[in-house]
Amino acid sequence: MNPVASPVISLSTLLNPRSVAIIGASDDPARIGGRPIDAMRKLGYAGRILPVNPNRREVQGLPAYASVADLPEVPDVAVVAVPAAQVLDTVTALGERGTRAAILFSAGFAEIGGDGVTRQAELLAAARRSGLRLLGPNALGLINVRTGFVGSFASSISLGPIQAGHVGIVSQSGAYGGHLVMAAQSAGVGLSSIVMTGNEADITLGEVVQLMVDDPHTRVIALYSEGINDGNGLVAALQAARRARKPVVMMKVGRSEVGGAAARSHTASIAGDDAVIDAVLAELGVVRARSTEEMLDIVRLATRGIYPSDNTLGVITVSGGAGVIASDAAEDLGLPMPEMPASTQARLLKLLPICSPRNPVDTTAQIVNDLSLIEPFAEAMVGEGGYRSVLGFFTYAGATPAVAPSLREQLARVRERYPDRLYVLVLQGPRDVLNTYEEAGFTVFEDPTRAVVALAAMGRFGHAFAQPETTPLPAAQPVALPTQTPSEAEAKAMLDAAGIPAVPERACAVAEAAVIAARELGFPVVMKILSPDILHKSEIGGVLLDVRNEAAVRGGFATLMQRARDAAPDARIDGVLVARQVSGGVECIMGIKQDPAFGPIAMFGLGGVFVEVLRDVVFHRCPFGEDVAERMIRSIQSAPLLLGARGRPVADIPALAQALSRLSIFAAAAGPRLQAVDVNPVFAMPAGQGAFAADAVIDVTPPQSSSGDLAS
Amino acid sequence: MNPVASPVISLSTLLNPRSVAIIGASDDPARIGGRPIDAMRKLGYAGRILPVNPNRREVQGLPAYASVADLPEVPDVAVVAVPAAQVLDTVTALGERGTRAAILFSAGFAEIGGDGVTRQAELLAAARRSGLRLLGPNALGLINVRTGFVGSFASSISLGPIQAGHVGIVSQSGAYGGHLVMAAQSAGVGLSSIVMTGNEADITLGEVVQLMVDDPHTRVIALYSEGINDGNGLVAALQAARRARKPVVMMKVGRSEVGGAAARSHTASIAGDDAVIDAVLAELGVVRARSTEEMLDIVRLATRGIYPSDNTLGVITVSGGAGVIASDAAEDLGLPMPEMPASTQARLLKLLPICSPRNPVDTTAQIVNDLSLIEPFAEAMVGEGGYRSVLGFFTYAGATPAVAPSLREQLARVRERYPDRLYVLVLQGPRDVLNTYEEAGFTVFEDPTRAVVALAAMGRFGHAFAQPETTPLPAAQPVALPTQTPSEAEAKAMLDAAGIPAVPERACAVAEAAVIAARELGFPVVMKILSPDILHKSEIGGVLLDVRNEAAVRGGFATLMQRARDAAPDARIDGVLVARQVSGGVECIMGIKQDPAFGPIAMFGLGGVFVEVLRDVVFHRCPFGEDVAERMIRSIQSAPLLLGARGRPVADIPALAQALSRLSIFAAAAGPRLQAVDVNPVFAMPAGQGAFAADAVIDVTPPQSSSGDLAS
Repeated sequence: MNPVASPVISLSTLLNPRSVAIIGASDDPARIGGRPIDAMRKLGYAGRILPVNPNRREVQGLPAYASVADLPEVPDVAVVAVPAAQVLDTVTALGERGTRAAILFSAGFAEIGGDGVTRQAELLAAARRSGLRLLGPNALGLINVRTGFVGSFASSISLGPIQAGHVGIVSQSGAYGGHLVMAAQSAGVGLSSIVMTGNEADITLGEVVQLMVDDPHTRVIALYSEGINDGNGLVAALQAARRARKPVVMMKVGRSEVGGAAARSHTASIAGDDAVIDAVLAELGVVRARSTEEMLDIVRLATRGIYPSDNTLGVITVSGGAGVIASDAAEDLGLPMPEMPASTQARLLKLLPICSPRNPVDTTAQIVNDLSLIEPFAEAMVGEGGYRSVLGFFTYAGATPAVAPSLREQLARVRERYPDRLYVLVLQGPRDVLNTYEEAGFTVFEDPTRAVVALAAMGRFGHAFAQPETTPLPAAQPVALPTQTPSEAEAKAMLDAAGIPAVPERACAVAEAAVIAARELGFPVVMKILSPDILHKSEIGGVLLDVRNEAAVRGGFATLMQRARDAAPDARIDGVLVARQVSGGVECIMGIKQDPAFGPIAMFGLGGVFVEVLRDVVFHRCPFGEDVAERMIRSIQSAPLLLGARGRPVADIPALAQALSRLSIFAAAAGPRLQAVDVNPVFAMPAGQGAFAADAVIDVTPPQSSSGDLAS
Repeated sequence: MNPVASPVISLSTLLNPRSVAIIGASDDPARIGGRPIDAMRKLGYAGRILPVNPNRREVQGLPAYASVADLPEVPDVAVVAVPAAQVLDTVTALGERGTRAAILFSAGFAEIGGDGVTRQAELLAAARRSGLRLLGPNALGLINVRTGFVGSFASSISLGPIQAGHVGIVSQSGAYGGHLVMAAQSAGVGLSSIVMTGNEADITLGEVVQLMVDDPHTRVIALYSEGINDGNGLVAALQAARRARKPVVMMKVGRSEVGGAAARSHTASIAGDDAVIDAVLAELGVVRARSTEEMLDIVRLATRGIYPSDNTLGVITVSGGAGVIASDAAEDLGLPMPEMPASTQARLLKLLPICSPRNPVDTTAQIVNDLSLIEPFAEAMVGEGGYRSVLGFFTYAGATPAVAPSLREQLARVRERYPDRLYVLVLQGPRDVLNTYEEAGFTVFEDPTRAVVALAAMGRFGHAFAQPETTPLPAAQPVALPTQTPSEAEAKAMLDAAGIPAVPERACAVAEAAVIAARELGFPVVMKILSPDILHKSEIGGVLLDVRNEAAVRGGFATLMQRARDAAPDARIDGVLVARQVSGGVECIMGIKQDPAFGPIAMFGLGGVFVEVLRDVVFHRCPFGEDVAERMIRSIQSAPLLLGARGRPVADIPALAQALSRLSIFAAAAGPRLQAVDVNPVFAMPAGQGAFAADAVIDVTPPQSSSGDLAS
C-alpha cells in the first residue's frame, strides 16, 4: 500500500516509551494538547513528559520547551497535537532528532480527500526519510493502561482510570474505540492497552495487532475494523496471534458492502467483501462478533485462558427451561452436548429421584432446598461427564444469602480438582455477590444464550490453536500471464498445465479441422466460438450442444462464425472449439477473485442455479492444499448432491479437491495481474473418473511499467 | 385436548379475586403454604385472605379454618398447597362450595407419568362437574403485581416487591418464569401480572394469554413456552391480542425438536415442529425472541406503545462506526434506512461541514463540543427525514455532566413536537443519569445492535396491527375422506374436485385401455403403476417416462404390472395410470401435514433437490387465500426460478397460488383424519398456462368410533 517500504524497527517503543514529547502541549487539561499530560500525571506514568509549546515556559507545572530542537533529550515517542499545516514540519523535526515514533492527533489529511491525500503522502515521505514511524494522522491514539502512558485525547480518559487487565483493544475508529472502552468497563473487562489507528498512513491495523501479540500483558485481542488496508500484514499478525495462543475477536462492520464494481466474472460478482472477510477470519481462527456486546462477552470469558480444542458442553440447571435454551443455542453453534454416562445417570437418579440426569442435568429447584447435593452433582458432571465447558444455571437463587456461600464453595472445590475446564454460571443478583463468584474463578452471565455463545467461541479458539501449521503445498509452477485476456482454449491450456484438467478438445480454425477433431474425440461433441473478446458465449448463441455427426459439425462451424460476426463485429475470432460432450457429471463452478486486501480468493460451488440464484458457494484465501479444498467442497449446503444424496453417484471428490487446490496455487503464483478466473462448468464425474473443466475464462490486466513497484 | 368442554366463565377472577383461601396454609412464611400469605400481607393485598389448616386456629396472625367446608364465605379463588394425595378431595370440596378457580401448587400428576396422569384426569373430571377452573397442577401460580395478589410460592417473591408496570409474563415453566421476573427487574421492565401455568390440566397457555389481553393493566405480553398443548386456543388468544393492539413476544424453546416419527410423506418429514411454530407466529404478528435478553429488550421498548406500520430508521451518531453497525443490523432485519432529503443534507452540511448528512447522520464528536447543534440536527432528522424510529448514538459522552442536561432537553423538545415516533438512545454511564433519559421518554440501550433489533420488532408489531382481517375464502366443498388411503388416481380426482387441477390422465385396468388413453392424451405419455398400497412408486421402478408410441405403451403396461407384483406381492393393484407428459414447467411440491397443536399445515417449495437437499420450503396454517399463497410462493429462496431468473419463462404464479390456497381449504375441510398430502410434483407452467398436479398422495387414518368425540 505504501509507496516506500516501512522501516523494520520494533514498534514496542510506541506502547512503552521512556519519554514522550507533547508537541502543541496545552496548559488546559481539557484541551486536546492538554489531555494526555493531565491523564499521564493522574495515572502515574513513570516516564519523562516533555511539553513543547513556543509560548510557555511551563505547561501544567512541567517545564516546557519552545521547539522539538530545544528538547533536552530525544523523546522515544512524540504526541503531535498541532494544526494540520504544521504537522509536516513537526514530523521532519522529530525525524531529524531521531525520535522513533509519533502519534498524530491532527486531522485534515486523507480522510478529507483532495489536498489532504497529498499532504498525507508528504508526511509519510518525510517520516520514511528519517525512519520515524507514524500512528495516524487523525488518530485518537493509544493508552497503555498498565503504565499510565497516554498518547490519546479520548474524552473517556477524563472519566477516571481504566480497569487494568489483559484485553488489548485495537480500533480503526476513535469514537467507537472510546465506546468500546467504556462498554468494557461496564462489563468488567480489564484492559492492557488501547490503540486507535486513524488514517493508517504508516502503521496499519496488522502492525498494531502484532504489537499486542508481542505485549506480554495482552492475552486477548479485541479488534474493531471498518476496512482492511493491508490484508497481508493483518493475516501475518493474526497468524502470529494464533501461534502465540492469543485469541482474537473481531468486529468487521459494513457487512452490506459488496465487491468490486461491474465485475466481469461470476466469482468476482458473488464474492462480496464480507464473504471474503468471513472466509479469511475463519481460516485464521479469529471469531467474528456480531455485536459489541458479543465481542465483550467473548473476550471476558477468554481472559480465563482456557481454550478447549475438543469443546463439549455440560449444563447443570435448576430449571428445565434454561436447559432447553442452552441446548438450542449449543445446537445452533455446533457445540456438542454429549449425554452423561449411563452409570452416572443411574447414580444421580438415586441421589435425587426427580432429577433429569442426561445433559442438561436438571436438578430442579430441589438442589436449592438441599444444598448438600450441589457438590456431588457438579463433581459427577465434570469428573464423569468429562465436559470441557460447564454451564451452571442457578439464576437469582444462586445469589441469595441462603445459597450463595455454600454454592460457591462447593463449586470452587470441584473447580480446584479440574482447573482445566471452563466454568460459567448464569446468575441474577447484586453485583457484589456476582463478583464473589468471578473472584472464585467462575465467569458470570445473566443470560444463558449469551453464556453459550461465549463458551462456543472458546472451543473455536482451541480448535484453531490445535491446528497443525498448514500442510505443505506442491511447488507452484511459474505462471507467465499473457499480456491480455486469453481465449477460452488458451485459458484452459494454462489451467491444464497448472493441474486443472480440461475436457478433451481441439481449437479449430477451419470447418474441416473441426470435423477431424470431432471424429477423434468421438460424437456427440460440443462446439463453441473461440474468441478472447467474447466472454459470455452463450449470450450470443455461441455454444452448440449435442452435435452428433460430421454434417452437423460443418453446419455448426458456419453458424457459429456467422453469429460471432453479427454479435461482435470487432471481436478477434480464432475459430471454433470442438470438445467431447461430457455426460453423467455434476456441474460445478470454481473461480478466483483478486481481493484488494487479501489477494486471490478461490470460490467453489455447484453450477447453474446453485451459484446464480442460491449463492451457495464457499471462499478461501489462496493458496491451499487438497485437505482444505475438500473441506470447502463438503461445506456447501448442496454438497449432498456430490456425496450420493437420494441415490445419486458419489462424485470424484479427490479429483475435484485436487483441481481446486491447484487452481489456488496457480492464482497465488500468477500475481496481482490476474483479475479473475471462472472455471464454469467443471464436471465432477463419478468417483474415480476425475473432474474436468469444460469452460474457463481468465481475466488479466495488462502489465504496467514497473516504476510504481519499488516497494517490497 | 380435554375430555370435557371447559366451562365458559370469565377467568378474570383468577387475576383479581376479592377473597382467597389458602388450603394447606402454613404459619412459617418460608414454607410453600406460608409464602403467599406472607407476600400478600407485605404487598398490601386488599382482599380477604382465608387460611385453611385443620391443626391451627391462627396462621401468620390471621384466623384459620379447619376445612373448606368451615370457611365463612365462598372464596373467589383457592390456592392449594396440600400433598398430591389430598388434592382431589380438596378440589371436590372447593367445587361444592362454589369457588370459581383453584391454583394447584401440588406436584405428582401428569409430569411424573404413569399414575400421575390418571390422578390428573380425575382431578379435572371433579373440577368440571362443579365448574371449578384449575391452574396447574404443578404450577408456580400467579402474581398480580398491581394488587398484591400472590397465588404463587415462587421464591423470588421473598426478595422484595416487584416493580409494577405494563408487561404481563406468561410462562409454562415455573423456574424459568422466576428467572424471567428477576431478569425483567434487572432490565427495568415493570410488570403487571405473572402467570406460570404448570401442567395445564385445565387452563391452557392460550387462556392465560386471553386473560392478559383482557387485563387493562397489561399492554405488552411476554410469553415463554416449552410446548403447545392447545394450538387453536393459543391462536385465538394471539388473534385477540393483535386486535387489541397488544404486542406479544414469545420464546418457544426446544428448537431442535423434530416432527412426527416415521413420517410417510415428504411434507410431514420436513415440517418440524419448530418450522410450524415459526410460520404460525409470523402469521399472527408475534415476534419470536431468540433469547431472554432479546425478549426483554423488545418488551421494554414496546411499553412505549408506538408500533409504526411503515417503520423506517434514522440514525444520528457521534461515531461513524456506530452508524455502520446500526446499518448492518437494520439490513439484516429488513428495516429500511432511507436517505435524508437532499435539501436537508445540504443545509446540515452548511451547519457542520465535517458531518455526513445522509443517514446514518454522522455528526462526529463535534456535536458534543458545540451542543447548540443537537436540536437542529435532531429536528431535521425527525421532521424532514420523517423517520418513524430514531436511534441516537451518544455513548458515554451523552451521560457526562457537561453534555447530558442539554442533550436531554433539546431531544425532549423534538420529541414533544413529534410524539408519535420511537426514540432510542445508545448511552454508557451511571444508571441514574440513564434513568433521566428514560423518564424523558427515551428508551436507553447500551449496545447499538440490540437497540436496532428492538426497533425492528416495533415495526413488525405495527405491520401486524395494520393488517386487514384475513380476506374471505371461497366456501369449502364438503370433503368426504375415504376410509383408507386412496390410490394416486383417486387422490388426484379428490384434489381436482377441490380445485387443484391434475395433469390429464386416465386410469387403465388393461393394456388396450392404456393404448387408447395414450392416443387420446397425445404422445409422449407417462405411465405409472396404480395402487393404493404403493406410495413411493419410483422406488420400485413403477414410473415410466417418455413413452413415445403404442407398442411402448403395451410393453410398459406389462413391465409395470410385473414390477409391482415382484416388489409388493400383497398390494392391491388397480392397473396403470397413463398421463400426458408435461414439459416446460417448473417442478414444485405442495403438501399438508397434520400438526398435533395447530391442525393442518400447508407446505410449498420447488421439487427435487430444492426440497430434498436444500429444504427450501415455506409453511402456513390452513386455510388461507390466494394472496397468502402468493406471498408464500414468492418467499422461498429459490423463487427466482419461478419469476424469470436468468432468462427463464415466468411461471403461472396465479394458478400456482390458487392451487395452493385450494389445497389449504381442502385440508381444513377434511378434518383431523387427513394425516398428510403430498402433491409432488406440481408443474408450474409458463404464465397463463396453469399449474398441474402430476402425482399426489393422500394419507388418511381410518374413522374411529365417535364415543371419545363428545367435546366441542
